[in-house]
Amino acid sequence: MKVIGKIGKSGNIKIDEKAKFPIILDNIAKKADIAEGKRAVEDIIRVIYRHQPISTKKIAQKTRLPLPIVAKVRTLLEREKMLKRTNRGAKLTELGIKFAENFLKLKHKRSLTCDKCKGRGIVLDEFFENILDKVKVWAEKRPLVDTSIDQSFATPETATYRTALMYERGDLEGKRILFVGDDDLTSLPTALTHMPEEVVVVDIDDRILTLINKFSKEEGVEIKTIKHDLRKPIPTSLRGRFDVISTDPPYTTNGLKLFLSRGIDALGKDGIAYLSYSHKPINEWLLVQKAITDMGFVISELIPNFNYYEGSEIIANTTFIARLIGRDLKPVIGDTENIYTGLVKPVVRYYKCLKCGKVYKVGKDIKKIEDLVCSCGGKKFKMIKREKIKE
Amino acid sequence: MKVIGKIGKSGNIKIDEKAKFPIILDNIAKKADIAEGKRAVEDIIRVIYRHQPISTKKIAQKTRLPLPIVAKVRTLLEREKMLKRTNRGAKLTELGIKFAENFLKLKHKRSLTCDKCKGRGIVLDEFFENILDKVKVWAEKRPLVDTSIDQSFATPETATYRTALMYERGDLEGKRILFVGDDDLTSLPTALTHMPEEVVVVDIDDRILTLINKFSKEEGVEIKTIKHDLRKPIPTSLRGRFDVISTDPPYTTNGLKLFLSRGIDALGKDGIAYLSYSHKPINEWLLVQKAITDMGFVISELIPNFNYYEGSEIIANTTFIARLIGRDLKPVIGDTENIYTGLVKPVVRYYKCLKCGKVYKVGKDIKKIEDLVCSCGGKKFKMIKREKIKE
Repeated sequence: MKVIGKIGKSGNIKIDEKAKFPIILDNIAKKADIAEGKRAVEDIIRVIYRHQPISTKKIAQKTRLPLPIVAKVRTLLEREKMLKRTNRGAKLTELGIKFAENFLKLKHKRSLTCDKCKGRGIVLDEFFENILDKVKVWAEKRPLVDTSIDQSFATPETATYRTALMYERGDLEGKRILFVGDDDLTSLPTALTHMPEEVVVVDIDDRILTLINKFSKEEGVEIKTIKHDLRKPIPTSLRGRFDVISTDPPYTTNGLKLFLSRGIDALGKDGIAYLSYSHKPINEWLLVQKAITDMGFVISELIPNFNYYEGSEIIANTTFIARLIGRDLKPVIGDTENIYTGLVKPVVRYYKCLKCGKVYKVGKDIKKIEDLVCSCGGKKFKMIKREKIKE
Repeated sequence: MKVIGKIGKSGNIKIDEKAKFPIILDNIAKKADIAEGKRAVEDIIRVIYRHQPISTKKIAQKTRLPLPIVAKVRTLLEREKMLKRTNRGAKLTELGIKFAENFLKLKHKRSLTCDKCKGRGIVLDEFFENILDKVKVWAEKRPLVDTSIDQSFATPETATYRTALMYERGDLEGKRILFVGDDDLTSLPTALTHMPEEVVVVDIDDRILTLINKFSKEEGVEIKTIKHDLRKPIPTSLRGRFDVISTDPPYTTNGLKLFLSRGIDALGKDGIAYLSYSHKPINEWLLVQKAITDMGFVISELIPNFNYYEGSEIIANTTFIARLIGRDLKPVIGDTENIYTGLVKPVVRYYKCLKCGKVYKVGKDIKKIEDLVCSCGGKKFKMIKREKIKE
């Protein structure tokens, strides 16, 4: 790699710039080791250019790139003197703006994402807003996430929007709906509509099921809960009798295959599946798309950035929702054991006590955030960092 | 098939109804010969229930089903005394409402599709509205559609929204964009933004290319036009040098494979493709999804009902747009000859002279609507009916 020129101290840097910019772009893409390549770096710069000052989290949301990648590119851009960090977020320097305008040919800063529906294409009316208000209260009562099983709670808004989408597409009224895992508590707004014929939840986490049962009793709705480890086939009583399934599976190809395949067992030959899943690098998403196709599902709709999650600034900022229509469905199951991201790519997470600020490492010795009690007695934590374990 | 009871003349029909409704549903789905099965009939009834009175065209748009299917189901529902036609559109009868409410368990009529963006997720601002105004003027100058090559013109709004979506996703500014066929004239709003680095159109129709050239000259923009039959490989001068392609190919699996594959030749290894395509029956769409996956494209976004077309009440009411991201792309070409729907399923179309009202048959002896001149001297026609040729 030949580096052509450095930025001089004088203003006279124009001669080198044109040749330098593509090299900078190449270098950053290589150093950040991004599956999406140069285009991902371009996307990050464009999003900063259009929305600056902007937080790293927002950049990740808008580019649909993982936050660690965005943070790395941001650091590399800082090193190249193209970006500076202010307390309101990242901003391009004069050089960064030149890069954006002269090399990437950016100029316009307008955002055309619909501000009414935030790009989701659907809105909540009063009926659903009232449901959301109730769901918010219950979401407060959730247990802490168990990251060892990839829990990451969707916001009450997300759960309600999912329900609204199902209503709008005719997948709610009179339908039998199974939630294949429901740490997101999407069954709550679904049941509050009183529209479905039946709402059933299978989940491995007793705490979630207990909360749902309590909710059903107090709100006077019916949600059947079944404790079940989805690595095992679903009970025969659930097979082939649902119209619709909804799942937000572990974000591994094996996890997705397994959860969707269990859903297929519940649907039978035909049916509708709502799949919430992470914006993955292309090569991984291609494998998923192939598996979905092999199962007999068509992607009839795919809305990026539909789902938002609580307190997961570090991991899944936002994921998409896809409405799949199945015909002559057949399960496609891979490895049923290595389904959680923690098992595929062991990670440690750093949690900060919300009471005293002390930081703990979770993932090696302490396996679950739930097991954590701070020396100050604090039991509430916030994840502040995540890194892969090098073995 | 056992038919249980008939509707009596007295009000006392409740005993038979419960048993009768599922049988009616089965029968209609079978008689209409719908690939989507009973669910399609349910969708039609739900859309009527929610939006009645409603035109057959609107039902087709909202259900994303082909208009002839909707018309057939509507007729069958009329025969079952579940539906009546008023001059404002279809309405459910008392029996139809019972069917909807008691059997399908419908109750709610609210629509949650965002009225600001019409479910597209993006909106036009003043900049794009101004572009739309210009495009509308030019769209008036379009030639008549040549249905033998599956032409069907997207509305100026559709072309402008496509451009807006490309802008929003970062696929416009500084990009080299190829339109693989452009009877929709999407290159017009694209060029009017003055954002892309290069805009090129390949199309087989001289009339379209001439119009685009005239537009470029008068509006002071640069669109390179190349006359080309896409059944042949694209010129070497176009290979591997585009960032983005956009296509609205013939709605046959072979047509889609061919147009996307020519697009891949233009993109090289990586790139973005905007694909506009008809909402197909599941079995057909599964084949398309497989082909797309084999090519190396992931569906990063799929917005149903994004595209609307001029004067095509009969054929494609509305189609989706998908943003595909390609990695290690490779063309997947099937039969390059039988790409047009007219060749796969020969049809005759009936056109009505807009001057005197006389109706002409196009498709067997008269091959193109363009060749048609009415005995009254009229040269403008509207398609009023389409049917398959039985050979």
